[in-house]
Amino acid sequence: MEAPQPPAQPMLWSGWGDPVRASELPAPVRRLLADLLGVRAPESPAVTLDEVRPPAPALPASVLDALSSAVGGGHVRLDDEARIRHTRGKSTPDLLRMRAGDVSDAPDAVVLPGSHAEVAEVLRVCAEHRVAVVPFGGGTSVVGGLAAAREGFAGVVALDLARLDRLVSLDAESMVAELEPGLRAPRAERLLAEHGFTLGHFPQSFEYATLGGFAAARSSGQASAGYGRFDDMVVGLTVATPRGTLDLGRAPKSAAGPDLRQVILGSEGAFGVITSLRLRVRPLPEVRVYEGWRFATFPAGVATLRRVAQEGPAPTVLRLSDETETMVGLARPEELGTLASEPGCLVIAGYEGTAGDVAYRRECTGATLSEMGGVPLGPEPGEKWAHGRYSAPYLRDSLLAAGATVETLETACFWSGLPRLYEAVRRALTASLGSPLVMCHVSHVYATGASLYFTVVTAQSDDPVGQWEAAKRAANDAIGSAGGTISHHHGVGRDHLGAYAPEIGELGVAVLRGVKERLDPDGILNPGVLIPES
Amino acid sequence: MEAPQPPAQPMLWSGWGDPVRASELPAPVRRLLADLLGVRAPESPAVTLDEVRPPAPALPASVLDALSSAVGGGHVRLDDEARIRHTRGKSTPDLLRMRAGDVSDAPDAVVLPGSHAEVAEVLRVCAEHRVAVVPFGGGTSVVGGLAAAREGFAGVVALDLARLDRLVSLDAESMVAELEPGLRAPRAERLLAEHGFTLGHFPQSFEYATLGGFAAARSSGQASAGYGRFDDMVVGLTVATPRGTLDLGRAPKSAAGPDLRQVILGSEGAFGVITSLRLRVRPLPEVRVYEGWRFATFPAGVATLRRVAQEGPAPTVLRLSDETETMVGLARPEELGTLASEPGCLVIAGYEGTAGDVAYRRECTGATLSEMGGVPLGPEPGEKWAHGRYSAPYLRDSLLAAGATVETLETACFWSGLPRLYEAVRRALTASLGSPLVMCHVSHVYATGASLYFTVVTAQSDDPVGQWEAAKRAANDAIGSAGGTISHHHGVGRDHLGAYAPEIGELGVAVLRGVKERLDPDGILNPGVLIPES
Repeated sequence: MEAPQPPAQPMLWSGWGDPVRASELPAPVRRLLADLLGVRAPESPAVTLDEVRPPAPALPASVLDALSSAVGGGHVRLDDEARIRHTRGKSTPDLLRMRAGDVSDAPDAVVLPGSHAEVAEVLRVCAEHRVAVVPFGGGTSVVGGLAAAREGFAGVVALDLARLDRLVSLDAESMVAELEPGLRAPRAERLLAEHGFTLGHFPQSFEYATLGGFAAARSSGQASAGYGRFDDMVVGLTVATPRGTLDLGRAPKSAAGPDLRQVILGSEGAFGVITSLRLRVRPLPEVRVYEGWRFATFPAGVATLRRVAQEGPAPTVLRLSDETETMVGLARPEELGTLASEPGCLVIAGYEGTAGDVAYRRECTGATLSEMGGVPLGPEPGEKWAHGRYSAPYLRDSLLAAGATVETLETACFWSGLPRLYEAVRRALTASLGSPLVMCHVSHVYATGASLYFTVVTAQSDDPVGQWEAAKRAANDAIGSAGGTISHHHGVGRDHLGAYAPEIGELGVAVLRGVKERLDPDGILNPGVLIPES
Repeated sequence: MEAPQPPAQPMLWSGWGDPVRASELPAPVRRLLADLLGVRAPESPAVTLDEVRPPAPALPASVLDALSSAVGGGHVRLDDEARIRHTRGKSTPDLLRMRAGDVSDAPDAVVLPGSHAEVAEVLRVCAEHRVAVVPFGGGTSVVGGLAAAREGFAGVVALDLARLDRLVSLDAESMVAELEPGLRAPRAERLLAEHGFTLGHFPQSFEYATLGGFAAARSSGQASAGYGRFDDMVVGLTVATPRGTLDLGRAPKSAAGPDLRQVILGSEGAFGVITSLRLRVRPLPEVRVYEGWRFATFPAGVATLRRVAQEGPAPTVLRLSDETETMVGLARPEELGTLASEPGCLVIAGYEGTAGDVAYRRECTGATLSEMGGVPLGPEPGEKWAHGRYSAPYLRDSLLAAGATVETLETACFWSGLPRLYEAVRRALTASLGSPLVMCHVSHVYATGASLYFTVVTAQSDDPVGQWEAAKRAANDAIGSAGGTISHHHGVGRDHLGAYAPEIGELGVAVLRGVKERLDPDGILNPGVLIPES
């Protein structure tokens, strides 16, 4: 399996990915939607790009001049298209608003610095003129991480890091690569592959997301069991802030005080702009094997994943779909809607590495899966999953067009709390939405716990944004009550702020404010995101 | 191999460990010291406990009354012995000062709270009366982490956590134990072993150090290759601060903002007092195998450890002594000074786990060690190392008494920087001390880098503290110039402050101050430690 090529086209402004790859809904899915969920085609189709107009830009000429001086005139963009393409992220409410022609959150300008020094200068200019700055990587946030609070600011600029896209250096001996934050993941993989290395970071946003975004939002990829989370990969960071530069990470691990890298990871642009990443890389795998297993029930599957995670050795990919997700076939996008012929729950186990290592891990994991009642399904379900692993967001666009709302949310907790968390979120979503289709999988496992990833499909009401926001609030409350974290790998943004504050408590929020005050005393960096208003 | 029993006696006030276990120097060591280093017995012997008098206690009766109300009268100790036993830590300069009868840094009182609420109340009282608070666990700091700056305070109390010593709960399903911070490691291991679990954390301070200290100082144990560092084990924390309680960690990993657990880990009591730890535990190993290998040179050994760390699977313990350390036999304390019969560098590889897992990892690692030129020495050197693994600090007392200064220091960096860092530190120590014995080992390995641990022996000058402080400054400068971190697992304390500040930069220091200000606005917590004076 080759790393996917980056799409030739820019991302769809009101949807996901390369417009060329937009997919028609398969007939069985259309039938399911109509029969099961009562989905009806919406009355008005989505608007087109030339029909939307962002608000008049707010920035005075003096600020624009200063920004042009900072980055060069050609790198400050004020045209509608650039502003629209930097409006919000890719959550379903974001897309619903865009499809309805609402681009009220558009930034006033898009600024593209070409170096750390230029980023620093942009921050200086914006602090001086009280302009809010939204660091912008791939634009794939699904938690409202890209819409700044405007109140109290002279305007908002999107700080697009696309020009910071180099593999700066590779220390093959230490297996550490220095990479720039604006690199999209497929290009980073290609640059590393020329030297025989990979990051091994493959989240569903892979095709468009950037390395800086992975770091700022604590991303975790589908191969986290083997390659680790993105925060595990970061051994060093350079960060431009309005108060100067942070340069962190002299060693893989240190006892020299708190790990300040871990303060920047997950800071979502609110503390500074990451301008360089030193990342652990791995040799490209010799062998890749993905295969499927079937378990009778979700609890039986969870118990099995727990044993594998606790006893090791871990596979590279380990996922378990619940009964509903297995039945609908979300793990086999090409067969979506062709209801599974066998009941139960699908496990995908993938192995990447040297031949010997893959053979050993596969043997050990296979023995545990068998012992726990798993039925081997061979490589076909695994290969199908691997082939379709980045397809779901394309499908969402088609579902939205057909009148269905589809959205995902995710959480994590310790193993003993997982059954309660699973039930609580399902109940909350079902109670809020009537009779939605709620699917779930476990896709990130640790010795002490795991993530739960929910996909919800429901018929759109007259107010689909309000409908989803209510469901999301109910799910957030359920997660909080059941003791889960409000996000395992999507982040906080604006959408999770209300749930995040109680998770870390008043004093946790105070810690964030203490850091913010020192790095960004004027509060220009991504205001409204991550840190609750005081 | 059983986990060692906790010593019956309290720790030696002016040295290490159980006085009963103090060891005579073997004759070959005495000869080596005299012939090689010119060590001569010091003119005056160490003072005894009843000869030393701490300064008159400074705290007014009103403060003592308030502290007694907080923790109960019997738990505020003002007697000389209690104060002396809470004076400083266990670095060589600490011991040299104690042996000379200098207890000028003694706290004014020792306070022993029995619960989180009592800790919080002590902090409240101390903030109100401007009393500095030194959180005190096992008292084993070797970086000056236990001597508060007195200036500007009404006095100093040692906050001894010894009464917080329970296994609060065990979630066997999640393999997470809630433990209190005052538990010494051997007792924690015994409590967990009753349920079939272990932490797997075995630093050299194991016999006396506490769990809270491990967390506060980012400890790393000798089995870190297999069980991970202590910071890897912490999945949740409760922290009492003068501004309230922090309760962190709802899941193994989260994308809900920065990982605030990592802000407390390594905070050395300057941000708050850890009152509960949720720690990942592991099943007690079925099998333990330790064995020795010989490599021709240190670089050959380093290259081999790098391959093992990068290719995996990792052993549980992996250590490499350089030529000098191997020759002197520091890795075989029972034969110390019996010069090694073969030249080269000793590697200790240890494996713990299930029989199958140990067999596989031993086979893979053995294959790599052989391929890289290692000569297998069988289990004897491994077992000897394991047997003597906690002996070195006892030996130090005997060396100090004999007129030698012995001290350790450690650092870490990425693999490509290791040779330069190794040479730079050796050169700096040798240049500063004349002709010391400088030994080194690698004992913590990661895919991207490793630690270096130096042991230095030299003849005491007339001013042994000043002599060592100069050497230590030279080593710190060398570490900084060569790009290493100032500590891989000892921490910052007061001794590393000067080197730590440039490592994280002015803005990194500002981040620490921002956090400190929010959690401890009066600055009562361990003043002078971790955070440079502004």
